[in-house]
Amino acid sequence: MSTDSSYFASVAPVRYQGPASEDPLAFRWYDKDRLVLGKTMAEHLRFAACYWHSFVWTGLDPFGGDTFQRPWFSGGSPMELAALKAEAAFEFFSKLGVPYYCFHDRDVAPEGATPRETLANFERMVEKLAAHQQRTGVKLLWGTANLFSHRRFMSGAATNPDPEIFAMAATQVKAAMDATKLLAGENYVLWGGREGYETLLNTDLPRELDQLGRFLNLVVEYKHRIGFEGTILIEPKPREPTKHQYDFDVATVYGFLCRYGLEKEVKVNIEANHATLSGHSFEHEIATAQALGIFGSLDMNRGDAQLGWDTDQFPNNLPDTSLALYHVLKGGGLTTGGLNFDAKVRRQSIDAVDLFHGHVGAMDHCAHALEIAARMFEEGRLAGAVDQRYAGWREPFGQQVLEGKVTLEALSEHVLSRNQDVLPVSGRQEAMENLVNRYL
Amino acid sequence: MSTDSSYFASVAPVRYQGPASEDPLAFRWYDKDRLVLGKTMAEHLRFAACYWHSFVWTGLDPFGGDTFQRPWFSGGSPMELAALKAEAAFEFFSKLGVPYYCFHDRDVAPEGATPRETLANFERMVEKLAAHQQRTGVKLLWGTANLFSHRRFMSGAATNPDPEIFAMAATQVKAAMDATKLLAGENYVLWGGREGYETLLNTDLPRELDQLGRFLNLVVEYKHRIGFEGTILIEPKPREPTKHQYDFDVATVYGFLCRYGLEKEVKVNIEANHATLSGHSFEHEIATAQALGIFGSLDMNRGDAQLGWDTDQFPNNLPDTSLALYHVLKGGGLTTGGLNFDAKVRRQSIDAVDLFHGHVGAMDHCAHALEIAARMFEEGRLAGAVDQRYAGWREPFGQQVLEGKVTLEALSEHVLSRNQDVLPVSGRQEAMENLVNRYL
Amino acid sequence: MSTDSSYFASVAPVRYQGPASEDPLAFRWYDKDRLVLGKTMAEHLRFAACYWHSFVWTGLDPFGGDTFQRPWFSGGSPMELAALKAEAAFEFFSKLGVPYYCFHDRDVAPEGATPRETLANFERMVEKLAAHQQRTGVKLLWGTANLFSHRRFMSGAATNPDPEIFAMAATQVKAAMDATKLLAGENYVLWGGREGYETLLNTDLPRELDQLGRFLNLVVEYKHRIGFEGTILIEPKPREPTKHQYDFDVATVYGFLCRYGLEKEVKVNIEANHATLSGHSFEHEIATAQALGIFGSLDMNRGDAQLGWDTDQFPNNLPDTSLALYHVLKGGGLTTGGLNFDAKVRRQSIDAVDLFHGHVGAMDHCAHALEIAARMFEEGRLAGAVDQRYAGWREPFGQQVLEGKVTLEALSEHVLSRNQDVLPVSGRQEAMENLVNRYL
Amino acid sequence: MSTDSSYFASVAPVRYQGPASEDPLAFRWYDKDRLVLGKTMAEHLRFAACYWHSFVWTGLDPFGGDTFQRPWFSGGSPMELAALKAEAAFEFFSKLGVPYYCFHDRDVAPEGATPRETLANFERMVEKLAAHQQRTGVKLLWGTANLFSHRRFMSGAATNPDPEIFAMAATQVKAAMDATKLLAGENYVLWGGREGYETLLNTDLPRELDQLGRFLNLVVEYKHRIGFEGTILIEPKPREPTKHQYDFDVATVYGFLCRYGLEKEVKVNIEANHATLSGHSFEHEIATAQALGIFGSLDMNRGDAQLGWDTDQFPNNLPDTSLALYHVLKGGGLTTGGLNFDAKVRRQSIDAVDLFHGHVGAMDHCAHALEIAARMFEEGRLAGAVDQRYAGWREPFGQQVLEGKVTLEALSEHVLSRNQDVLPVSGRQEAMENLVNRYL
Repeated sequence: MSTDSSYFASVAPVRYQGPASEDPLAFRWYDKDRLVLGKTMAEHLRFAACYWHSFVWTGLDPFGGDTFQRPWFSGGSPMELAALKAEAAFEFFSKLGVPYYCFHDRDVAPEGATPRETLANFERMVEKLAAHQQRTGVKLLWGTANLFSHRRFMSGAATNPDPEIFAMAATQVKAAMDATKLLAGENYVLWGGREGYETLLNTDLPRELDQLGRFLNLVVEYKHRIGFEGTILIEPKPREPTKHQYDFDVATVYGFLCRYGLEKEVKVNIEANHATLSGHSFEHEIATAQALGIFGSLDMNRGDAQLGWDTDQFPNNLPDTSLALYHVLKGGGLTTGGLNFDAKVRRQSIDAVDLFHGHVGAMDHCAHALEIAARMFEEGRLAGAVDQRYAGWREPFGQQVLEGKVTLEALSEHVLSRNQDVLPVSGRQEAMENLVNRYL
Repeated sequence: MSTDSSYFASVAPVRYQGPASEDPLAFRWYDKDRLVLGKTMAEHLRFAACYWHSFVWTGLDPFGGDTFQRPWFSGGSPMELAALKAEAAFEFFSKLGVPYYCFHDRDVAPEGATPRETLANFERMVEKLAAHQQRTGVKLLWGTANLFSHRRFMSGAATNPDPEIFAMAATQVKAAMDATKLLAGENYVLWGGREGYETLLNTDLPRELDQLGRFLNLVVEYKHRIGFEGTILIEPKPREPTKHQYDFDVATVYGFLCRYGLEKEVKVNIEANHATLSGHSFEHEIATAQALGIFGSLDMNRGDAQLGWDTDQFPNNLPDTSLALYHVLKGGGLTTGGLNFDAKVRRQSIDAVDLFHGHVGAMDHCAHALEIAARMFEEGRLAGAVDQRYAGWREPFGQQVLEGKVTLEALSEHVLSRNQDVLPVSGRQEAMENLVNRYL
Repeated sequence: MSTDSSYFASVAPVRYQGPASEDPLAFRWYDKDRLVLGKTMAEHLRFAACYWHSFVWTGLDPFGGDTFQRPWFSGGSPMELAALKAEAAFEFFSKLGVPYYCFHDRDVAPEGATPRETLANFERMVEKLAAHQQRTGVKLLWGTANLFSHRRFMSGAATNPDPEIFAMAATQVKAAMDATKLLAGENYVLWGGREGYETLLNTDLPRELDQLGRFLNLVVEYKHRIGFEGTILIEPKPREPTKHQYDFDVATVYGFLCRYGLEKEVKVNIEANHATLSGHSFEHEIATAQALGIFGSLDMNRGDAQLGWDTDQFPNNLPDTSLALYHVLKGGGLTTGGLNFDAKVRRQSIDAVDLFHGHVGAMDHCAHALEIAARMFEEGRLAGAVDQRYAGWREPFGQQVLEGKVTLEALSEHVLSRNQDVLPVSGRQEAMENLVNRYL
Repeated sequence: MSTDSSYFASVAPVRYQGPASEDPLAFRWYDKDRLVLGKTMAEHLRFAACYWHSFVWTGLDPFGGDTFQRPWFSGGSPMELAALKAEAAFEFFSKLGVPYYCFHDRDVAPEGATPRETLANFERMVEKLAAHQQRTGVKLLWGTANLFSHRRFMSGAATNPDPEIFAMAATQVKAAMDATKLLAGENYVLWGGREGYETLLNTDLPRELDQLGRFLNLVVEYKHRIGFEGTILIEPKPREPTKHQYDFDVATVYGFLCRYGLEKEVKVNIEANHATLSGHSFEHEIATAQALGIFGSLDMNRGDAQLGWDTDQFPNNLPDTSLALYHVLKGGGLTTGGLNFDAKVRRQSIDAVDLFHGHVGAMDHCAHALEIAARMFEEGRLAGAVDQRYAGWREPFGQQVLEGKVTLEALSEHVLSRNQDVLPVSGRQEAMENLVNRYL
């Protein structure tokens, strides 16, 4: 068991010092109380750090073992280590100045020998989390249940061929929802890491979809029964760990919600790296969710354009993040959602301070991007150019068409009686791209 | 103007000669009247050849010009060439022995100087097609309108920023639907090649989705008004030519149909190469459409796993095609749909006979795959193993859960009172894969 | 035939106006005479515009026809149109203020009815280009021969199964090299668009590699014979138009050069979009070419991370371009090479002014990136951190190992006698990424 | 510690029973003594099973923990477990009837507390392996050292920034080479899983290439010194675990070998899944290695066209494997190399019998593919069509060109004096593809 000295003793609380600061662990852009478009930066960005990557992951990858050596990885009983981990985590959240955190049930408390012991472990640790929250003022953005790491879920949780495993999953979700409510979490998230298939050869796809639809309805029914007021969020991902995941992307989730009558009940938590793995840009997924009325929250990270898996790196491309946040602002900003850094330091970044480098850089980067996005939004030049491009649809003819007052025959008659071609108009993509670059 | 001698004079009608045949232009597997699972091969496969790749495409690619030199490409007036092309096409369909064909409006008749002239050209050519159909017995699997090649559609047809171009598109679709009905087409297809965007910077995404929803409703309303009894089909594709296409994949189309109230009216035409470009296997898209109740028809071709664009090659991988057809059989087979070869000979295959090599090989390949798929289906070993895997869901507990009779709390109570872990069961993927290979 | 009035009459020469300028067609960053690290911006960047995308491409893509309507596309004889095109091109280069241009033989002069007529056409147009160069001061960065568009090259040029087509290709290259020398071109480029294969089934791969090796040796021998002092450059690309191209990436080209004895004679022209298509970052390809001693020149553009083909868009991602130019500076900068915009406006950008938006934005973007890269380079913090990381290799033990003075046995003995583990050191990736973002 | 009863007790030795066998654990195609093209199937295929996937991997993936529960995973001291594992492995190899196996040093013996203890552990286990080989007749295809799993190698082994880690790697390789020689291994393999980089920002790329070149020379020098007569093999892989690996693909390795003077000393071990991850087909990599004279051995497996990582599945696509083996036959077959199943059962395939399903299916599949490939090769129709296509290069003109007897000027003169175009000839790709399908 490690000593009681702090794991992050060498790092001072992170402060805003302005753009000229040479301190690599100071904020140059993130001034949490600074007003941007009438709200503070903190209110806009609603940053969260996650428990799993920074406090649970050991640095392991498919070709290599642990690289990190955290004091809470060994040297005590599982519950002692869990308590030590929670202390370190809240020390980290506090020094970082992040207002929110997120966790899976299994991140914070160890599996026990039986379901009851597992539940008891979890409930004891949730009490400790409540105390840490109380003490530090750090809040819970969302809770979730890990239904993908344990071998019992290897063939799915809600979509498992065995209904007893569905029941095991339900048990975990109930407890995780109870904990989230108790900890005043503002959302509850479901990511179905094993809700998919490895091969259609052993899969009853329609049955599994129905199982998943039932499961999600159980969650929504329970939410209402217990009076949880947060938002239920699904996190789309196309593949990995399974070959195909049912929550492939935002549009797929929307169709799924419609099919099971939940499109007014559930929203999406969109992750940048999941977006790119599904063949979309991050802003595409944001804009699509907004258009379909299911935009909820964001997992901020980035993938690597040359790699075909989820690298969960910290976001650092300024034009990319600026455009993503511009879309967030255009859609009215975050409500119960936030910007959760579902990001991990590289497995070669083995020191405690590397966790700060990763998060400080990412928070500062997002604050910088927010400034840029706010200017894009406020000046209105981008949006104005788009509005102008579609001006015809706000004229009477366009409106009548959209309102369903004109038949196919009438449209054909309209064209044939006019009897002349319609000329295309330049899309001005390069000019728009240059306009964006003016804000950098 | 070319002579009246046949372009395919050197090729005799293609005949079934059995597996031992050494004739490269004979069928070794496709014996159209042979009974398989109670239907003839022709009834199962419902083959169609397409007009566009074989009679319109010039061999052009983004880095090079025409390689084909067909008699109907030059040497006469546009309408003379269209007539010559139709003759060649029907000679080809007949010699090949394909029961169906498919076309875009612009494949068969040239654009005129005005909308009225364009319509007149089309109507004249539709008459000729009717005569060719009558003469040869070749039938129309589906018609469609080309709303992506002309520069007026460069920024979309239904999703164009200009409602006048929406009207131009509607005019074409009305005429193409009229023609499809007149020619007794069994389906009508929409592929939205430009219904998407190049950059979100100049795009009003929610507005464009609404435009597309309106357009599709116009089509469905018109279908009912004219009493067209075929199926309306959307063809998903994730990208190309646009960066993002709204009909990304089957699941996306399903959500779109739900949003615009059309999930009972419209089905999908799934293309193998579009499936793989969207990050799915062909059989995934088939199984998904079947699960969602929107399976319609298939565009048979293949992509290249190393290439990121639509190569539209003829299908030739026996295990892949067998599994696709196995899923078709499992779902009850094709009804109004068919197997349309949306495939083109490579641009280096410049001779008339290459068109036969491509199609004869592909038809024979599909017939061979059908034999294999039929055995897989008939023996029931694959399906039996799947059924057994999910046996628990047919027991009382599983059924009650699925029927919504058990709450989340009750599931948790069920687990906690039992208080023991549930053991996972092998998924047996390798054994299943070996079983498939027994049929080859 | 178009009138004699200028196609770009509405656009004034582009001038530097400083960062505050609101003129979308002014430079905000590119101040050509401004000194950066002891050289002018113009000397660092050596910008070139290309003939093909802006003056030859019609807007055509695989699913649609022409969208651009340039005066030199129709209305005159091929040679009249070529002359008009050259006038427009040089008007464009001059107004843009780009010091260099690049061309393929077929961009500037039409194919004739016979090889001799083709050569005569080309020679006549080269005279006109010489006069335009003289008149405007615009110089030739490189010339090249188009060995991929004509149908005779559909199965390769140097790698064609027919040696007569190899000879046709040689004829074109000789003329293009002669022209490049006459026009004082500073490099000569070979891009083998069809030097690859569609299927191994019809390909004699080792023979084709030998053909290509012979062809390149012919080029180098001729270069020396005529005293051309420019650099011979190969442009790697992994695929498209062919399924596999022999010049896959920088490392592949290096191996090829070694095999055919040319690694001291030939360098590479690296294109950003080709780099990403081959699974590498742009800076990887630059760094690799520098490490192997074959870095030559750059084609500046960008691809789209979601698209699997060569989109040839204008570069616009500031961190990406800054890192690429940082690597250029680290390697000593460009010598005979330049930054050629192998980029095209989107096919929806149909107006003359769009050509300016594309190029002005890209030049300005590169100048902005140069400022950033120069600061990264000058401050030396990035390089310093790298040097420090490898410090052990500059100590005696490391040096002896690298110099080959220590055997495998001795290394083993060194470890076993010391008999203790070596601890890993943090790679500090996040801190390095944050450091990069300080320069933006 | 597990009991002494066999882990595979329930599985009988696998036997050839012919195509009609209904036993899923019998061979239907692999009749080891059957003559094909004058050699037995066993001599052609030289099958090997690998230690790592089947006996070391626990079922862990990036999102989940162990799923397998092998007796040798826990319950004894590391050396006791290693001994138990070796017994199980040789029982498996013997029952399977695979003539060869392969291992990494760390697969067979645990890391000790010090380098000397590690070496001692390894040497003790190598003795046991020797005894098992002696007892069972199973031979060693190749040995290798695991230089990627331990945290000390997180930043590379030969390419590590710290020369002391280079020395640690050298120590392991020396011992693994010694063991391979002692065990009469027929090859020695190097796969550089961490020989690459995560980010260029902290990497000295040219220095790391030189380190790697030095390391490989050390290996070759040592091989000659100890008189090891097997082949030294490099295994290319483009990425994973690192973002970029220096041994990207066959062509890259060839250039690397040339640069460090080793192209006559070292060959490649090509893995199917590595080939596809690098953007190539498996047969491309085989054909390229043959053309460059560095073809060595094969890792047989398959990837998943929809997944961007190394899935290491058992090969099962009959046309794909047949074409790969056709290329092997065309190039003269395997010499010291073999077909090593670098493949793992899925993590859901948790039973002992699943290891047999995976390997039996794959061996049988390869034997079936060999039959097909042998017919393709023997009939010579595929090769004949290729030869005919290049016939012109065997005529005097073609030969003189290839032999370097004709200058660029002479080629140009040849074309201009002839003064007529050369017509292209059909590539007949579809006919060739159909011909391949005749063999299935």
